[in-house]
Amino acid sequence: MTRYSEQTKLLLAIDCIIFGFDGENIKLLIIKRGMAPEKNKWSLMGGFAGPREDTDQAATRILKQLTGMEGIYMEQLRAFSDPSRDPEERVISLVYYALIDLRQYKEQITEEYHPAWVPLKEIPELIFDHQQMVQEALRTLRYKAALHPVIFELLPDKFTLPQIQMLYSCVYDIEFDKRNFSRKLLSTGLLVKQKEKDRINSKKGAFFYKLDKSKYKDKFRSFLNFVPNADSFMM
Amino acid sequence: MTRYSEQTKLLLAIDCIIFGFDGENIKLLIIKRGMAPEKNKWSLMGGFAGPREDTDQAATRILKQLTGMEGIYMEQLRAFSDPSRDPEERVISLVYYALIDLRQYKEQITEEYHPAWVPLKEIPELIFDHQQMVQEALRTLRYKAALHPVIFELLPDKFTLPQIQMLYSCVYDIEFDKRNFSRKLLSTGLLVKQKEKDRINSKKGAFFYKLDKSKYKDKFRSFLNFVPNADSFMM
Repeated sequence: MTRYSEQTKLLLAIDCIIFGFDGENIKLLIIKRGMAPEKNKWSLMGGFAGPREDTDQAATRILKQLTGMEGIYMEQLRAFSDPSRDPEERVISLVYYALIDLRQYKEQITEEYHPAWVPLKEIPELIFDHQQMVQEALRTLRYKAALHPVIFELLPDKFTLPQIQMLYSCVYDIEFDKRNFSRKLLSTGLLVKQKEKDRINSKKGAFFYKLDKSKYKDKFRSFLNFVPNADSFMM
Repeated sequence: MTRYSEQTKLLLAIDCIIFGFDGENIKLLIIKRGMAPEKNKWSLMGGFAGPREDTDQAATRILKQLTGMEGIYMEQLRAFSDPSRDPEERVISLVYYALIDLRQYKEQITEEYHPAWVPLKEIPELIFDHQQMVQEALRTLRYKAALHPVIFELLPDKFTLPQIQMLYSCVYDIEFDKRNFSRKLLSTGLLVKQKEKDRINSKKGAFFYKLDKSKYKDKFRSFLNFVPNADSFMM
């Protein structure tokens, strides 16, 4: 073992993957990179970890600096560290990700660095290994959503069954059978039917539901049944 | 955004958490640290990421250097980055972990740096935030083992029901009811009963079983039922 002073110091980048659900689509937040190399190419929200902050704080600072967005809980995905991933210099990137209700944050976005929300199917070419980062984050998200009702957090306080189905269809890029999906969903016992109907989105109207949050923990297992081939999302 | 040359470079440490199952206990591999600060205190296997290797390679190199162990697949846990975690200097640590069959690797260990296997309940005080790293790795392990038959990999090719029960008891630190456990285990359809009995560990003998690996993927869900309060291990 050798001394600290003999060790090579490295640049540590933080890259943030922000997925947003707008009620119909899941979108990814990207930005035009402001420095060389690859200046003006599409990139994740990125920056470098500073000397006096932990990496969670760095991720929060970078996201705020580039977009104005605050109060978003991001989770670590993993470090990407191929020695040739950045042509300029050796940079290890620690990747964070989050899934948010886009409607809730849309107003927060500042335009200074021209951030853009793009649907998952229309993501342009991204710099370095950012495309791979997004794919892995999406995989992790699908895995978690199959096991926990995490993505329910993206729905408004009161929601309809078609709204949930839309959300699950977006996350898994799968068309669900409407009747089957509703039946499985209701069988979890997690939803509390309300008296009012949503009559804006259909003539017939669809009943509103609320989530019984007290049952979250006990019932999460039922969510396994939602997703066909959930195994394929397993790590 | 600023240029690379204006950014602070940091030391990136790699710490490896190796859990080993010896048939009766799960043990943690620790070592006496060979440099200041905290020289000669108990530590995880650690070192610094070099300039021309990715972090997976660094973890493999460090583990081999300190213990002689090779061929172990380690997974990233997460980065630990409290600015004051190492009193000497700002060091971010990327933590890796693995669970191995200790009996298979025992011969491989070199004594140069005095590595030691200690039962989970007898872990001495560890340097820095290493104790917290171990607790998080254990939590992640329990989570994964509740969802996937990963820990079956630790059993010999042919094994008995008491052997599996011992393994699960170790991972979860729980006493399982013998009959209940066997019933749930067999109901997964994952085990293939053999004709021979193990007569070494009991007079009456216990039938050997083999794992039907082709059913791994389809059947993983059944494993949820093994663990009481699996929810509490959920992230």
